Amino acid sequence: MRLSPAITELMRALRTLPGVGPKSAQRMAFQILERQRDAGLQLAQALSEAIERVGHCSVCRTLTESEICELCANEGRRQAGLLCIVETPADVLAIEQTGQYQGCYFVLMGHLSPLDGIGPEDIGLDKLAERLANESVAEIILATNPTIEGEATAHYIAELARQHSIQTSRIAHGVPVGGELEYVDQATLGHAFSGRKRIDFDAF
Amino acid sequence: MRLSPAITELMRALRTLPGVGPKSAQRMAFQILERQRDAGLQLAQALSEAIERVGHCSVCRTLTESEICELCANEGRRQAGLLCIVETPADVLAIEQTGQYQGCYFVLMGHLSPLDGIGPEDIGLDKLAERLANESVAEIILATNPTIEGEATAHYIAELARQHSIQTSRIAHGVPVGGELEYVDQATLGHAFSGRKRIDFDAF
Ligand SMILES: [Zn+2]
Ligand SMILES: [Zn+2]
Repeated sequence: MRLSPAITELMRALRTLPGVGPKSAQRMAFQILERQRDAGLQLAQALSEAIERVGHCSVCRTLTESEICELCANEGRRQAGLLCIVETPADVLAIEQTGQYQGCYFVLMGHLSPLDGIGPEDIGLDKLAERLANESVAEIILATNPTIEGEATAHYIAELARQHSIQTSRIAHGVPVGGELEYVDQATLGHAFSGRKRIDFDAF
Repeated sequence: MRLSPAITELMRALRTLPGVGPKSAQRMAFQILERQRDAGLQLAQALSEAIERVGHCSVCRTLTESEICELCANEGRRQAGLLCIVETPADVLAIEQTGQYQGCYFVLMGHLSPLDGIGPEDIGLDKLAERLANESVAEIILATNPTIEGEATAHYIAELARQHSIQTSRIAHGVPVGGELEYVDQATLGHAFSGRKRIDFDAF
């Protein structure tokens, strides 16, 4: 049997969402049509409006519907002179949730990937070079993902920072807090050893 | 930090979908805005169109954008004289996927639930009574869920069928095919025993 075309098309469109398979799409479509039509219309409107309004911050490239995002517009953060480089807006959110960082961000919206034809300008590094030349940045913190592409991207940016004589650091990789050594992968455990810190007995 | 309002509203709207929590909604919103804007617009349109066009079949009450759904319009099925009663359109799909049934359906779009104020007319039983009076139905198959409400609803409809002298059956409950007894719940195992079938040795 075939469902009517509008239902079939709704299920197909729902499957484009990450993590939504055929079964979930069917459940979503029926739930909307059976008892959540108002919520469904609101979702349609939220999608259209977000897609129409949300662009990129002209300073840090993150997603925002303003010309300059809230964090870039924050005078206190700008004066801190710290610039954290991340791959995605979700990374900004994750770091903000730690409450540990009070500086600015630069969001690559991806990473270098020569095989996919993604070069420095595709991830805004021309814009970043311009900022490093014109702003007073005390330290760059490289928070790209601990993947091959993320490491290569971090390496490239570290080189760029060196040309502008800016101090640069990479976030620490190691055993997750609360994690058990037994379940930590080899690469992470390797990082945990090579990045070990001398215990400062005076601090106890 | 606050995300811009259009992104926040999109995440809120996505969370109204079944099975979507805050974390999934965030991932969906970012994925749409970062690299699936066309798919996002298509989803918005599919939602609006389905909600506008899809109503209920005037014969069986299932979701359809036609006046009469494909299954009710099928002459061969109508002549079979079988009417299967289910709670939802998803149940119709599930039964159709077995390929075992070639009759018609009546979709309650719910079940009797006096505590929630859901009575016979809310699940279309007035319409069903009318059909039983005017159509030639040889057998009613009750396929409501094996829940308290589903059983009560099945019972109510069985009574209605008796008034019209129509033969009525309930789908069998028991141990799922491929299931292990050890992992089957008590109620199901109880049904499996009370519904046991005598082995017909002639059939071997
Ligand atoms: Zn910004
Ligand atoms: Zn129908």
